[in-house]
Amino acid sequence: MSQEIAIGLSKNARLAYGLDDVAIVPSRRTRDPQDVSTSWQVDAYGFDIPVLSAPMDSVTSPATAIAMGKLGGLGVLDLEGLWTRYEDPAPELERIASAQPDDAVSLIQKIYTEPIKEDLIVQRLHEIREAGVTVAGALSPQRTQEFYSTVLEAGVDLFVIRGTAVSAEHVSKDHEPLNLKKFIYDLDVPVIVGGAADYTAALHLMRTGAAGVLVGFGGGAVSATRSTIGLHAPLATAISDVAEARRDYLDESGGRYVQVIADGEMGTSGAVVKALALGADAVMLGAPLARSTQAPGQGMHWGAEARHETLPRGFRSQVGTVASLHEILFGPSHQPDGKTNFIGALRRAMASTGYVDLKSFQKCRMAVSPSHLL
Amino acid sequence: MSQEIAIGLSKNARLAYGLDDVAIVPSRRTRDPQDVSTSWQVDAYGFDIPVLSAPMDSVTSPATAIAMGKLGGLGVLDLEGLWTRYEDPAPELERIASAQPDDAVSLIQKIYTEPIKEDLIVQRLHEIREAGVTVAGALSPQRTQEFYSTVLEAGVDLFVIRGTAVSAEHVSKDHEPLNLKKFIYDLDVPVIVGGAADYTAALHLMRTGAAGVLVGFGGGAVSATRSTIGLHAPLATAISDVAEARRDYLDESGGRYVQVIADGEMGTSGAVVKALALGADAVMLGAPLARSTQAPGQGMHWGAEARHETLPRGFRSQVGTVASLHEILFGPSHQPDGKTNFIGALRRAMASTGYVDLKSFQKCRMAVSPSHLL
Amino acid sequence: MSQEIAIGLSKNARLAYGLDDVAIVPSRRTRDPQDVSTSWQVDAYGFDIPVLSAPMDSVTSPATAIAMGKLGGLGVLDLEGLWTRYEDPAPELERIASAQPDDAVSLIQKIYTEPIKEDLIVQRLHEIREAGVTVAGALSPQRTQEFYSTVLEAGVDLFVIRGTAVSAEHVSKDHEPLNLKKFIYDLDVPVIVGGAADYTAALHLMRTGAAGVLVGFGGGAVSATRSTIGLHAPLATAISDVAEARRDYLDESGGRYVQVIADGEMGTSGAVVKALALGADAVMLGAPLARSTQAPGQGMHWGAEARHETLPRGFRSQVGTVASLHEILFGPSHQPDGKTNFIGALRRAMASTGYVDLKSFQKCRMAVSPSHLL
Amino acid sequence: MSQEIAIGLSKNARLAYGLDDVAIVPSRRTRDPQDVSTSWQVDAYGFDIPVLSAPMDSVTSPATAIAMGKLGGLGVLDLEGLWTRYEDPAPELERIASAQPDDAVSLIQKIYTEPIKEDLIVQRLHEIREAGVTVAGALSPQRTQEFYSTVLEAGVDLFVIRGTAVSAEHVSKDHEPLNLKKFIYDLDVPVIVGGAADYTAALHLMRTGAAGVLVGFGGGAVSATRSTIGLHAPLATAISDVAEARRDYLDESGGRYVQVIADGEMGTSGAVVKALALGADAVMLGAPLARSTQAPGQGMHWGAEARHETLPRGFRSQVGTVASLHEILFGPSHQPDGKTNFIGALRRAMASTGYVDLKSFQKCRMAVSPSHLL
Repeated sequence: MSQEIAIGLSKNARLAYGLDDVAIVPSRRTRDPQDVSTSWQVDAYGFDIPVLSAPMDSVTSPATAIAMGKLGGLGVLDLEGLWTRYEDPAPELERIASAQPDDAVSLIQKIYTEPIKEDLIVQRLHEIREAGVTVAGALSPQRTQEFYSTVLEAGVDLFVIRGTAVSAEHVSKDHEPLNLKKFIYDLDVPVIVGGAADYTAALHLMRTGAAGVLVGFGGGAVSATRSTIGLHAPLATAISDVAEARRDYLDESGGRYVQVIADGEMGTSGAVVKALALGADAVMLGAPLARSTQAPGQGMHWGAEARHETLPRGFRSQVGTVASLHEILFGPSHQPDGKTNFIGALRRAMASTGYVDLKSFQKCRMAVSPSHLL
Repeated sequence: MSQEIAIGLSKNARLAYGLDDVAIVPSRRTRDPQDVSTSWQVDAYGFDIPVLSAPMDSVTSPATAIAMGKLGGLGVLDLEGLWTRYEDPAPELERIASAQPDDAVSLIQKIYTEPIKEDLIVQRLHEIREAGVTVAGALSPQRTQEFYSTVLEAGVDLFVIRGTAVSAEHVSKDHEPLNLKKFIYDLDVPVIVGGAADYTAALHLMRTGAAGVLVGFGGGAVSATRSTIGLHAPLATAISDVAEARRDYLDESGGRYVQVIADGEMGTSGAVVKALALGADAVMLGAPLARSTQAPGQGMHWGAEARHETLPRGFRSQVGTVASLHEILFGPSHQPDGKTNFIGALRRAMASTGYVDLKSFQKCRMAVSPSHLL
Repeated sequence: MSQEIAIGLSKNARLAYGLDDVAIVPSRRTRDPQDVSTSWQVDAYGFDIPVLSAPMDSVTSPATAIAMGKLGGLGVLDLEGLWTRYEDPAPELERIASAQPDDAVSLIQKIYTEPIKEDLIVQRLHEIREAGVTVAGALSPQRTQEFYSTVLEAGVDLFVIRGTAVSAEHVSKDHEPLNLKKFIYDLDVPVIVGGAADYTAALHLMRTGAAGVLVGFGGGAVSATRSTIGLHAPLATAISDVAEARRDYLDESGGRYVQVIADGEMGTSGAVVKALALGADAVMLGAPLARSTQAPGQGMHWGAEARHETLPRGFRSQVGTVASLHEILFGPSHQPDGKTNFIGALRRAMASTGYVDLKSFQKCRMAVSPSHLL
Repeated sequence: MSQEIAIGLSKNARLAYGLDDVAIVPSRRTRDPQDVSTSWQVDAYGFDIPVLSAPMDSVTSPATAIAMGKLGGLGVLDLEGLWTRYEDPAPELERIASAQPDDAVSLIQKIYTEPIKEDLIVQRLHEIREAGVTVAGALSPQRTQEFYSTVLEAGVDLFVIRGTAVSAEHVSKDHEPLNLKKFIYDLDVPVIVGGAADYTAALHLMRTGAAGVLVGFGGGAVSATRSTIGLHAPLATAISDVAEARRDYLDESGGRYVQVIADGEMGTSGAVVKALALGADAVMLGAPLARSTQAPGQGMHWGAEARHETLPRGFRSQVGTVASLHEILFGPSHQPDGKTNFIGALRRAMASTGYVDLKSFQKCRMAVSPSHLL
């Protein structure tokens, strides 16, 4: 079904759509919002809501990871972020939040040169564990080999490997790259890995044994991969492609259902609803949660891409503070701007199209409106 | 004729157009504007102009409903609005009009918690009846069972059931939902019901016995359904689809012609003209009439979507005050901004394309200009 | 070759392009700019440049009509404008130029209620005649019968009938409409008539015996037909369609070549070049000439559409004053904004694509760049 | 594979894409950035990076040409620019940099009327030669015959003939045009010639014996060819077309590989990456290098198109000063705006898609995202 166009005589391209480009079309059946289920499960872990907080220092601290868990979702802590580099990251968070726009990335580059401490990894994960919620921590593929044993010893329920482009076939001249398949096979805990942005990359990641695949590549609120390195994978198309890989892998594996988790480019509740309608099983949110009163970013938002010492591919963005984490997820909402009551919006959308659970909601009909293609 | 594109490997979408995307193309015949007819009829009720005022508190009061009737159109009063909640809604209208933008939705949520009074329903409808015009009142599907007998006893000529997405097959676990087919069959007065935004939903509503179907879903000036819950049905495509349902139902029913009424997304006279050209028999107007000097909204405009207690999906918008209701409908116009002389514009468009009445005008040729797709 | 899309199940539309949407593609041959010819001829009248000044009071006065003629083009005077309503239109021009934006259309409506005087028609045409240039005057189709004999007696070389939508088959209940075919047959002078915006309308106008057809409908700088009455015919597509009608009519008539004159929507020299490349034999310019230091509009620009007493469909726009008429047509240019040296630009474009005259230039290759579709 | 659409009944057009319209899609393999090669070679001259500085006075002085060479690229001096017209161009550069925006083009027109001195051509080229880097100078096709012998005597390694549209078949009535084929055949040094913007023009230029072809036509940061003369060739499509010509010419010539050099429209590192992915072997940069602290333009940028005495088709643009030439090419970067560390970005993009050298990178997959088509 994919659509090819010719850029020129020697190069074809795929037409690819972002979440803003698409919309859900109401159909003939409706339902009461309270009758729908938003529950989600990965491996043995069940959640009331299909929401993971992104492992970004502006979003997830041990405290907000715990809060996410108590609210029915999953908080994922960045194990290469400020909480594992600094005993007390508060002053650094304060400096980043208050930096002038032009100085922010330089400052971030500098602050993140502080080495990661293994004891802080242990300490942060224990803190979350003690609160009685599901524990999840994220490493980049580059540093997984260095820190994973520390992470495992500290204890996590779900292990997340997250980079901008993660492939199952990384090639290196200098060092033996992480063999994802072997690594995941050896591990006792389920692994969520990504971002992947197309069918093939996702299928290969699924074949490594991952429990979930993150879908995304540089589409988030603080990403600049399109302008800096020319790469971009619009999320609506990426989700739909990876959902197809999930279906094909389900068949080829004889029944292993890999969770597809949309990651990035979802600034509003409407965008989250569309990501789920397109085939995602859950969403990993950055900017929406960075807007909470509890967010460590204090109204500012940035990601791991901004840290790179010579080629930062993300910026610090002011997203503002709009409501408590509870109100952002469950309302009540007092502004129709899609920034609060994400789960209420999801329930309403499912009810308006007549679906009872997230899996069946993936069947809903969609439209592309050319006049909204910007 | 509908056009499918592939969002990704697992999801197709329909290409859907809004009114701004399309334009009418002049053809080889022209005519004098005074020679065309703009008359419209639903059931036994005839109107000089194909215009209904939307049941929104910023647009339709008992007084403006009467004014609409005297001018040849139809005023539809919201029977769940301020006029049935407050003996004197003037102070509440004043508060909403003068609220700060950021506070407006909260205030609307609060003001509309005041219960609906059955005696006020009766009183408002009697007031319109006494003026000698056609009487029409609107309820939401959720509260139709609670109030319809009061409405019928008070006496209406046309009964309107209006929600954002109204289906003929609502499902609920808690309560027995409104059985539209039985309800309409039992009723003595003709029913106009909607919004519906696609062929199937509209066809099912037509099969309930409705005299008219409202076409629309969240496209109006004060709607935020796209950003909040991800649903959107661009109106040009929706009208054309529902017009096809009208034709098929006409055949299957052996001759019952259901009126198709475009609802929302028509801010200018040009948009009204296009809605009628696309197949609508009449239009229900909000923003254009909220701009009249008589409008209860005093230059502000809001709809029922803004009232929701936990998930408002509409906002209060400043539309300004431009002219009297008479000038908005019949001119003279002194600005070429499409905000006055809607009927004059319709006559001129029909004359420039050579059609004599609204039904034949639905045959006119149209163009989509990619450079206007925003 | 025309492209249809489905707006919805019951309505198709044509994809139509404006001049901004398209561009000329350079090809393998180039040429010296001084080697190309820009000459143009209609009936017995030859011109060095394919440019007519629009019959708009902000553009063409008797003086600028004479100037146009002396510069190798053709000035067309509006015979229903201020010069035939007022002995001395200077004060009225001054009032329009200095009116506040919101008052301008009301003022124009009022000023143009002054009746047209037949003796002023005669006087203005004589004034142009005496200067030794080709004389052309324009009437609207509505008033052609009333004034044409006066115009003929006063003496014109070319007679222009110009309205927003002019058809060969106007229908009226009240009066016998102008029979264009008989009228043109009886007339001794060649007639240029329009606007027409599609193949059929243009073909019918060609069959009336017209020497030239104006192509356009509401696309100009001061037009509001799209927002007011919903009609629009993007000019690139319209020119190409009418050029096809010219070819078919050339065949059916056994060799009568009707001049296709693009009218409106050409604000820059680049747009003029594209109009000619698309198949126009000449262009009728408004805004570009309204920017001359000699223009009667004094930096303001408006058309006949703004005069309508109850439904103005055009506005007064500030276009500014940039250079003398000579510099606008022939340069030298000191800003690369496409507002001066229109003929130099045309020569350069023809040279860069290797064509020697306007007729062969109509063969040049074009591109539509989606990223410029706004 | 090329896509035709119908503008109207008599004219088709090609759909053509700019660099902003396209993006590179990550695929299943990744690689370490330090493992990729960015080397490039034309004729006998090898370069570490595939970057030429544009022969524009705001970009390339003898000093920056030398700096480019030392950094692994190629500096190309405009031999008709200020350095060959003025013994000391510093005061003129200063005047252009400090001119008011509205006066800049007039001033440029005036300053460039100063005649070109042959002894300065010699002097500037010697200066570059003495620094030990590859020497390249550019002439326009119009003046190549006048100055080429001086250039050859002074000594260049690579001879560049650069105009907006250069064809292998220029036609002139007044003079014998430059016979490119004979000229290049007779010359001892390799010639890079362009701009060409389509398959045929490029194929003809390749047949003249050119070592490289510049791809581009009026798409750069300071070009106004689209608005002034209506010509435009979006660069993504142009590069892909010329790359196809390269492949066909490789076959027809029995193995001569002509370098395809993208020229213009590349303001960010992301755009450079895309140009190379589309099939360019190297890029010629203007604006990105005009932003260096060493750039002679001092934060202002203009090209040869702005000099034309009667029809300037380019303007002077403020691009600002962001970093040293070294940082622009190799970083480190402290802003994620695509204005620094172009080579680092290229390495990262190649690594993220798994390619080891520039030639194989031309195979990478791409997407067109309708929502980025502006």
